[in-house]
Amino acid sequence: MQNFTYYNPTRVVFGKGTIAQLNELVPADRRILLTYGGGSIHKNGVYDQVREALGGRTTLEFGGIEPNPRYETLVRAVDLCRKEKIDYLLAVGGGSVLDGTKFISAAVAHRGGDPWDIVAAAAPVTQALPIGCVLTLPATGSETNGFAVISRQSTREKLAFSSPLVFPQFAILDPETTYTLPRRQVQNGIADAFVHVMEQYLTYPAAAPLQDRQAEAILRTLIEEGPKTLRRPRHYAARANLVWCATQALNGLINCGVPQDWATHAIGHELTALYGLDHAQTLVIVLPALWQHQKRFKQAKLVQYAQRVWGVRSSRDAAAVAIGKTEEFFRSLGMKTRLSEHGIGRDGFEEVADRFARRGQRLGERQRIGSRQVREILERCL
Amino acid sequence: MQNFTYYNPTRVVFGKGTIAQLNELVPADRRILLTYGGGSIHKNGVYDQVREALGGRTTLEFGGIEPNPRYETLVRAVDLCRKEKIDYLLAVGGGSVLDGTKFISAAVAHRGGDPWDIVAAAAPVTQALPIGCVLTLPATGSETNGFAVISRQSTREKLAFSSPLVFPQFAILDPETTYTLPRRQVQNGIADAFVHVMEQYLTYPAAAPLQDRQAEAILRTLIEEGPKTLRRPRHYAARANLVWCATQALNGLINCGVPQDWATHAIGHELTALYGLDHAQTLVIVLPALWQHQKRFKQAKLVQYAQRVWGVRSSRDAAAVAIGKTEEFFRSLGMKTRLSEHGIGRDGFEEVADRFARRGQRLGERQRIGSRQVREILERCL
Repeated sequence: MQNFTYYNPTRVVFGKGTIAQLNELVPADRRILLTYGGGSIHKNGVYDQVREALGGRTTLEFGGIEPNPRYETLVRAVDLCRKEKIDYLLAVGGGSVLDGTKFISAAVAHRGGDPWDIVAAAAPVTQALPIGCVLTLPATGSETNGFAVISRQSTREKLAFSSPLVFPQFAILDPETTYTLPRRQVQNGIADAFVHVMEQYLTYPAAAPLQDRQAEAILRTLIEEGPKTLRRPRHYAARANLVWCATQALNGLINCGVPQDWATHAIGHELTALYGLDHAQTLVIVLPALWQHQKRFKQAKLVQYAQRVWGVRSSRDAAAVAIGKTEEFFRSLGMKTRLSEHGIGRDGFEEVADRFARRGQRLGERQRIGSRQVREILERCL
Repeated sequence: MQNFTYYNPTRVVFGKGTIAQLNELVPADRRILLTYGGGSIHKNGVYDQVREALGGRTTLEFGGIEPNPRYETLVRAVDLCRKEKIDYLLAVGGGSVLDGTKFISAAVAHRGGDPWDIVAAAAPVTQALPIGCVLTLPATGSETNGFAVISRQSTREKLAFSSPLVFPQFAILDPETTYTLPRRQVQNGIADAFVHVMEQYLTYPAAAPLQDRQAEAILRTLIEEGPKTLRRPRHYAARANLVWCATQALNGLINCGVPQDWATHAIGHELTALYGLDHAQTLVIVLPALWQHQKRFKQAKLVQYAQRVWGVRSSRDAAAVAIGKTEEFFRSLGMKTRLSEHGIGRDGFEEVADRFARRGQRLGERQRIGSRQVREILERCL
């Protein structure tokens, strides 16, 4: 096991009817900016529950944070916060609203420089506005971590930053608020959580059996509960289990002391930036292709995964079975696992590979994936 | 799944050589009281590492906190803190030092009343001194939770309290500091962590499959790594895995949204108070006896545990097999699982049962265990 630090101060408030607890969780004297996305919270009752719980608190609103939240949108919220002397951010939505709100939080306090530097140049975050959140879409885990991914439309870039200062102070997770999500967002959420686990698990053995089993626990539960909640969106237990799995998948726990990959995400981000595919749509395409390409290096964990998660007892090539089962699982959720199914050919592959080359960026748990390997993996995505 | 709140703000710093990080973790301007136990930290080098990392900070010391830390001892530290205007507590040791330090932390700020009320009368903890810790004994999980158990010699009582204010701010876990622990303390630690998991897992099904699997992950890892670290105390990976299992067993995670038992602990505490047995020694005696007594109510989870943790495929009575395997596991660690092996007969049983009757206390996940059932369970402990 490698040395590690684990720190996660977010208070999770989980269950039916918990939005009412906002009244105790948000300090009474703050000037709040309520951030949200496309407006579904106006239709599903969440907005009304939030406003009622906030009572007479001074609350401004900033809606329209899009999926893959854009720098161009968020800087408008930064201006608003400064002008209106906002001192508390309440994010109501899914991972994109959360990520965007984290950027606003850090950017408001980033004086005298370009806030894009926080993302693009790892400018240190030394101050940030406090954030609370009401999660309405189980997927990214952003509700209890200090990460955010921000896109810039003008340059078609999608980049991440992290800071312990942007952990939400609290996260309200009421599974009932997710009942009315479109099917596609639920599929994406299941896949996103699943691949988050894989980025921290499917690498090489590191003498960390508890972390392995904690990861396998999430995978098995997603395989069991994911399809169940797609079939029966208002089955409370299934939805609650999906929400808790998605949170546990990226809260810093299962990566304690183990190597991490994240190559699937890095390549996927480029595909979203170039082709506009949903984040999770890219992941389910890249993951099996990347595993095939890297199979000999990931052999031991692929076999362990095959045995423990899929119950493969004996097979000449358990690793190949594991890759096949994984792609089948994604397809069983109703997702496309090939670029060609989205009508995408190899036209942009050079551009993607070049981006990694230009940045001198190498990917994977052993940095084995460079520009050439990205190109080869993309060929397997067709 | 039941509604729940999860909150755990402790920063875990895990691995070889991490005591040196005290220098960044403890504020430079604090007046520190370093608390410890029987003095093993002077022999194993931990004390020297701690003092070196603290550098020139004003540091007083309070040693001699005993196993099952005593109120009578701790109030002397409370007086010292007040007299010396201590404003930071650094606990260096195992669960007893941690628990005792939590009591000191809350009691120093408890003015105008008897500090024993914090434990005996649930007096609210409204302020507490900040605590940091260097853990040297994997067992109780106290390093990352807000619980403490305190004993009072004059009344032979052993009672618990909890407060979010007594979570350690940080916990340094260096597995190498545990290499020189006496074998008995390692046995106790493995058993303690194992039973902590059981109190939160072996109840009744609650539609919380992720929490179940997270609990099973800890159990399987303890079964695998516990005996390994007893055989080879300086095997780093085995020791690191034990340390991480013990922390994960009682950090508030696996009990999210599920019923809890804690009857084994409640009865065990009385046995420690009356007979002076080690805490874990009581747990491994009470747990199998309690399960036999409550078998029909715990049937479903006992069968799940048999199948998933012990790999029992088919059996007429998988629940009975599970109970037998558990007792065997404890014995394989070198522990005694019967009171008679400690030379204890039924003399004190009435007294123990009476205590629960006098307090009107009922135990277990469904409050099915009263004074009469405690008496019956104790008979099975002989």
